[in-house]
Amino acid sequence: MNTFYFSPGSCALASHIALAESGLPYEVKRLNFAEGEQRSEAYLAINPKGRVPALVTDKGVVTETVAILGYIAQAAPEARLAPLADPFLFAKMQAFNAYMASTVHVAHAHGRRGYRWADQETSFEDMKNKLPQVMSECFRLIEDGMLEGPYVLGEHYSTADPYLFLMSGWLKSDRVEIADFPRVHAHYRMMLERPAVQKALAEEKAA
Amino acid sequence: MNTFYFSPGSCALASHIALAESGLPYEVKRLNFAEGEQRSEAYLAINPKGRVPALVTDKGVVTETVAILGYIAQAAPEARLAPLADPFLFAKMQAFNAYMASTVHVAHAHGRRGYRWADQETSFEDMKNKLPQVMSECFRLIEDGMLEGPYVLGEHYSTADPYLFLMSGWLKSDRVEIADFPRVHAHYRMMLERPAVQKALAEEKAA
Repeated sequence: MNTFYFSPGSCALASHIALAESGLPYEVKRLNFAEGEQRSEAYLAINPKGRVPALVTDKGVVTETVAILGYIAQAAPEARLAPLADPFLFAKMQAFNAYMASTVHVAHAHGRRGYRWADQETSFEDMKNKLPQVMSECFRLIEDGMLEGPYVLGEHYSTADPYLFLMSGWLKSDRVEIADFPRVHAHYRMMLERPAVQKALAEEKAA
Repeated sequence: MNTFYFSPGSCALASHIALAESGLPYEVKRLNFAEGEQRSEAYLAINPKGRVPALVTDKGVVTETVAILGYIAQAAPEARLAPLADPFLFAKMQAFNAYMASTVHVAHAHGRRGYRWADQETSFEDMKNKLPQVMSECFRLIEDGMLEGPYVLGEHYSTADPYLFLMSGWLKSDRVEIADFPRVHAHYRMMLERPAVQKALAEEKAA
């Protein structure tokens, strides 16, 4: 059994969707961020970083979305969630996911978590103001090249797709029009139809 | 043949060391950041993100340090640069590398590249002032748990080691005393002795 720790509306949704696609057995545990549960002693024993997602497997804990997405694909090869047989194609997927994590998610976080990198209210305002521009630049690169279509890697679905879906879903709150990126928009709508996406969203609500 | 694009003093050094460890054939190409070569048309055709590192393989281009480090390990299995046979241990390495990329490197970048996320000089100053605190918090987590010792994953060297070595080498310029983190410090000194580290550093100088 795998236990998946998440917070609703967080980046954990990408890994949650991949789990739902994988066929691996899992249960979900919701952390209450408003009550600071991610900083509780019990959770810090699982993930000392105090962040979600965290996937507790029989062998130990996996953290970081890029690593969890790669792990799920490798742990459930029959689900074909990554081009596992080709190191180059696997690296291409990992590169996309790493860009999501270290550039796109980081950009997004400046809209509400500026306190991670600065102390002054004026800095937070500055970051918030710049957010739509930074997110738009990221999605311009995705629209014009990284998203091969219809899936991120082309004809085959992979764990890069739930990660893009997640980030695309954040655009509205970042004051960016998804319709300005027609290929991304089509990808988003296609993903919404997938049973695993609906399952993960329903499990988030029910938890 | 692989062609590795780098800029001296950048995060490319981690992948460069891994290449030197791997036994894979490669040549290095230096980009002149001061002259904006990373934004040249020729380089943007290789990596539209305009960043280093980029590894041009016979199959195509791999970007993002996390993906390049995983790729090198998988492409040169005989070099034993990752626990390739065990998806959980491989994910553990990837999680460490993802933390380096999306948290530690991002924290470091706020000391000199605040313009990525804000526009005002006062914000840049604010970020610079907070930098030692943020980097220290990252390295406290590394010192107290993530670095198993003597290598990141314990007894076996992996591509997580050059990435930690790189970040440890940035502490001084971030106004953090590496000596405050004795286990990290020991790791750094051990890495300096490795022939592949010396080879990569010499190649950076000569390029």
